Amino acid sequence: MNIAIIGLGNIGGSFAKSIRASFPNYKIYAIDIDTVTLDKAQSIGLIDGGSDDFTAIIPKADLIIFSVYPTLLKNLVESYVPYFKNGVVITDVTGVKSSVINQIEPLLPKSADFIFGHPMAGRENRGLEFSSREVFIGANYLITPTSRNLEENIDFLKNFVKQLGFGNISVITPAFHDEVIGFTSQLAHVIAISLINSDDTNRNTKQYTGDSYRDLTRITNINEKLWPELFMMNKDHLIKHIDNFKVQLDKLTQAIENDDVSTMENMMVESTKRYMDLHDLNEE
Amino acid sequence: MNIAIIGLGNIGGSFAKSIRASFPNYKIYAIDIDTVTLDKAQSIGLIDGGSDDFTAIIPKADLIIFSVYPTLLKNLVESYVPYFKNGVVITDVTGVKSSVINQIEPLLPKSADFIFGHPMAGRENRGLEFSSREVFIGANYLITPTSRNLEENIDFLKNFVKQLGFGNISVITPAFHDEVIGFTSQLAHVIAISLINSDDTNRNTKQYTGDSYRDLTRITNINEKLWPELFMMNKDHLIKHIDNFKVQLDKLTQAIENDDVSTMENMMVESTKRYMDLHDLNEE
Repeated sequence: MNIAIIGLGNIGGSFAKSIRASFPNYKIYAIDIDTVTLDKAQSIGLIDGGSDDFTAIIPKADLIIFSVYPTLLKNLVESYVPYFKNGVVITDVTGVKSSVINQIEPLLPKSADFIFGHPMAGRENRGLEFSSREVFIGANYLITPTSRNLEENIDFLKNFVKQLGFGNISVITPAFHDEVIGFTSQLAHVIAISLINSDDTNRNTKQYTGDSYRDLTRITNINEKLWPELFMMNKDHLIKHIDNFKVQLDKLTQAIENDDVSTMENMMVESTKRYMDLHDLNEE
Repeated sequence: MNIAIIGLGNIGGSFAKSIRASFPNYKIYAIDIDTVTLDKAQSIGLIDGGSDDFTAIIPKADLIIFSVYPTLLKNLVESYVPYFKNGVVITDVTGVKSSVINQIEPLLPKSADFIFGHPMAGRENRGLEFSSREVFIGANYLITPTSRNLEENIDFLKNFVKQLGFGNISVITPAFHDEVIGFTSQLAHVIAISLINSDDTNRNTKQYTGDSYRDLTRITNINEKLWPELFMMNKDHLIKHIDNFKVQLDKLTQAIENDDVSTMENMMVESTKRYMDLHDLNEE
């Protein structure tokens, strides 16, 4: 099995490390514009070969993992199409699905099976040096098949990521993916950015923080070239989620303004119940 | 040195464990309505004595640490006043300061020096069994002296908590404390509650979460008897912080709606810079 990883950054590197550990017999190749990183990765034995020239790698790849920005994906796929091996399985890591799938599927030859996916193991630090196989362990993985995907290849991908250590692997529609990710990931980023940017920088806030502020702002170290794309590609869902969040925020704000203890208590009892559900802590 | 801890829950228990480790010669006594917990704490050697009768403990205490709900504090201090040892130093852990101090100071005899404080080491789980000395290590500590506190006692308290492992110990005014804590702690809790309560519970969200959602909702396992009090006691600051947060949220929302990439990018560059400042990661 020859695997090609396109983009050897944090997530691509984590795939390489994870595959090395779980499948020692597989060959791992990487394509990246950063040849220094490729050389380093090869010298430490993380990959079996790397190149900035995709024609050297794509023809032999049985599995291709695109870990690149969503806007890059279309151009890369267009260039690679003539070089795809017959029967190649392809996947990606993009955080939005419907619009990406609509762009990519029309470009594909019949002999290439692109099964879109989303490992929920993003990290705030960029680059190969921050990659690790540990971030995959127990993390959620979302697979969003379409009518053109073969059942056997979907099963292969599910088993493959299971063996890399992912926990819950969900097979869902692209539309549902975008709806729920607009909530769990994108809304969280919108809130975190708004929170840290509303800080009064005249005081030295870090001397007065507890874990709560640090937790709520961890994801504000954000890639400004990637996330505006993701937000815009999922705009409708995201705006709906922001609106729903603001309804709750306004309700709580009003309760504080009016010394309305019972509304505050009810909202906190509800949030505690939901926390328990999220972490499987509720007794049956 | 005899220390009395009032309320042997998570934070009171963490003080006991921390004092035991840092000051093995100090005697630790605890007052709590839960005598089962007191007996257990004594049987494992965490405290030297415990009682639900404060008259057995308060008269011998050189240092009293109140780790109870803010609304309880006033009644307890009122009851304890006749029993305070001459020269006793008292502190608390309450998350708001100005209104608490205004309530308590008029009750105090001259011979009792109450130096109000706030260890920023709150945790989402209640009770002695979740206490630990580790939560204090490197955490921020805020001390809010008033004109009636003696300099030597302020120094004593600073050194005491430093030896318990706290990191940055800030001496600030009660008003500034409430302003900044309204932001770093209370606003964070308001946001987290609003976020988790805006979830659509018809989907099984936990299968589709990454670290970002789990981080932003960690503090939603919240004590509904404590936090409405804290919010109301600090209402003016908190409402102002919510308003400032909403200004940023609306700005980002509008940028998303308008495909305004440059505003989104600017906000993300700014949030990344602030993240770096918060974590001391900026190069000089």
